[in-house]
Amino acid sequence: MINEHYKAMLGGKSVIRSLSEYATARGAEIGYDNVYDYSLGNPSVPCPPAYTDATMALYRDADPVALHGYSPSLGIPSVRKAIADSLDRRFGMDYTADHIFPTTGAAGALAHALRCVTAPGDEVITFAPYFPEYQPYVAGCGARLTVVPADTDTFQINFNAFEQAMNPAVTAVLINTPNNPSGAVYSAATLERLAAVLTAKQAEYGHDIFLISDEPYREIVFDGGTQPYPSRYYDNTLSCYSWSKSLSLPGERIGYVAVNPRATDAELIVPMCGQISRGTGHNCPASSVQLAVAQVVDMTSDLSVYETNMNLLYDALTGIGFDVVRPGGTFYIFPKALEDDATAFCMKAKEYDLILVPSDSFGVPGHFRMAYCIDTEKVKRSIPVLERFAHEVYGL
Amino acid sequence: MINEHYKAMLGGKSVIRSLSEYATARGAEIGYDNVYDYSLGNPSVPCPPAYTDATMALYRDADPVALHGYSPSLGIPSVRKAIADSLDRRFGMDYTADHIFPTTGAAGALAHALRCVTAPGDEVITFAPYFPEYQPYVAGCGARLTVVPADTDTFQINFNAFEQAMNPAVTAVLINTPNNPSGAVYSAATLERLAAVLTAKQAEYGHDIFLISDEPYREIVFDGGTQPYPSRYYDNTLSCYSWSKSLSLPGERIGYVAVNPRATDAELIVPMCGQISRGTGHNCPASSVQLAVAQVVDMTSDLSVYETNMNLLYDALTGIGFDVVRPGGTFYIFPKALEDDATAFCMKAKEYDLILVPSDSFGVPGHFRMAYCIDTEKVKRSIPVLERFAHEVYGL
Repeated sequence: MINEHYKAMLGGKSVIRSLSEYATARGAEIGYDNVYDYSLGNPSVPCPPAYTDATMALYRDADPVALHGYSPSLGIPSVRKAIADSLDRRFGMDYTADHIFPTTGAAGALAHALRCVTAPGDEVITFAPYFPEYQPYVAGCGARLTVVPADTDTFQINFNAFEQAMNPAVTAVLINTPNNPSGAVYSAATLERLAAVLTAKQAEYGHDIFLISDEPYREIVFDGGTQPYPSRYYDNTLSCYSWSKSLSLPGERIGYVAVNPRATDAELIVPMCGQISRGTGHNCPASSVQLAVAQVVDMTSDLSVYETNMNLLYDALTGIGFDVVRPGGTFYIFPKALEDDATAFCMKAKEYDLILVPSDSFGVPGHFRMAYCIDTEKVKRSIPVLERFAHEVYGL
Repeated sequence: MINEHYKAMLGGKSVIRSLSEYATARGAEIGYDNVYDYSLGNPSVPCPPAYTDATMALYRDADPVALHGYSPSLGIPSVRKAIADSLDRRFGMDYTADHIFPTTGAAGALAHALRCVTAPGDEVITFAPYFPEYQPYVAGCGARLTVVPADTDTFQINFNAFEQAMNPAVTAVLINTPNNPSGAVYSAATLERLAAVLTAKQAEYGHDIFLISDEPYREIVFDGGTQPYPSRYYDNTLSCYSWSKSLSLPGERIGYVAVNPRATDAELIVPMCGQISRGTGHNCPASSVQLAVAQVVDMTSDLSVYETNMNLLYDALTGIGFDVVRPGGTFYIFPKALEDDATAFCMKAKEYDLILVPSDSFGVPGHFRMAYCIDTEKVKRSIPVLERFAHEVYGL
């Protein structure tokens, strides 16, 4: 019989997806160059040629039976080792291959990590603003998501609200830094304080609380900075990664879970991911993608365009009079809207062919997200349109 | 906190996987050529050169931003259309792209199809012998699997036992033809009778009963025969496919669910798959693999070696005195063991470096499975060893 639960979910359409579809339709009408589409977080720069070369060499030279054969259920050992070595080199960790579980992107990583450390009925805490897909990821485990209100002055963690929300049902805390949609990069001080709260609460409640750290934007940090590595601050950390953004490979579905070697039952968590896969039909990312990515594991695409675009937009928005926290990374910016109703604001912007995403589905009222993973030339052309919109509609 | 359910699953290791690991270790000791490893169903023939060429052309010529961009959540439209057109051409169906949901292999297909048409607490029926991973697939939906005993004379469906097992809690029936492990190809008569039972029971119970048809061996049929297409016989059918075997691409994780256009809520089932993906982190197979497979959608690897190997083994086994149903397809054969205890039999065979899989985990006692997706030369060399084993241990 048709499952009524999934059938009922068909009603709710993603706001981002709807806006993106509108932008495409409007582009067909007036020319896509004339639509300032800031809706979707699809990387705009190509993958490094070394990734293409690595794949073509595998297809040209490798034995196809071996290349396309079943990956072991926990991932290809040489790939797991290449990932562990890279993280150890870059972040001073001491992962071995046994702590790495290759996944189909960050979505696969989060689905496995959440199932490892929650049981049905548990509570998972995250912080606004947050990626809306955390709701189905957490619901898919039978757990429930509690969203801690944002600190809209900095988009670091609102610790007062966090400590009020903590309770013994919480078995996992989910963070995303650099953050979609705010662009905030959690500082070392934020991560230290977060670790201190979690350590104290573990002792108080007498059970583990895992930190699930969603890090697909880890390599997109501005002003020459870096993202402090969350797992360095708290042992019970599962780091979830995707190469979607850093190597511009979102469609290839490749990422991993990295288990801190000092986490509780650290040696069991990757084998548990293998068991979880059996029920969800996950069964590893594509073999050839695993093998190719392992060869470019320390590389990124040329990500500089995102910083160029951010600076252009930040200067323009503040010049116009927007209230906006300067992003430390990602390819998002999250200004305050010019009226309280973010959806009304974005609908008015649409009349100017400015496609902006209202903040409500990110758990924050009265803001909007711009995904500036688009050509710099288009960002520049959008600025006078933003100025005209703010002037004509809001008198700025 | 660590999830105790998944942790407890770590105890149970797959018999097939253990035997395969033993074979690899033994091969390191005495040379892999001297180990007659019939344990694993990993294709032994390369993918068609056209698949390699299609991938290399994509990597060489396509815009990398488009090639590696996000697949729409229901799959790439041109790929879905290519699959629908191929099935329509080959099986006289009338699928459109809207009825096709690309998945990460048959595992992904079954995980989605089962969730679409069962709810927690429902009962799913399958037929022995069956693929052991059906247990976690069904458990992952919160449903329970009932296994109907085998008709060991033919390995078609044991209809008396099936009709006894049917009850109003059954919302889905799961078949696998051509069958792993028996090699049986369900006949048109079997599929007609199955459809008649299901149609009658739908009327009697007043609810839909979906047929989930697992078909990764569809193109490996012997004696110039073909597999009658199950969805032609029963409207409420979800066909689950993988190119793992037909194109020798198990590691690339590529398959689909095809929804019969006359099924209940047919137009909703693929969008429901998209909703299910959000909770499991599935999010489509790799974009480049989707695009490359669509270009070779009607091809197969050179699968003739499997028929050659089957004939050699069938003749040898019957010559030795084994009781064996001749496979109609796949790359498996499923003879009766020479003693009641299949595990004891396979352990004794191991002393001869014959790696055979006992039948118990397939839901049938007293048989063993040989996966003959290995070199024909090795099959030939194994025959005198099989003869010696049967003679020395069982006096044949």
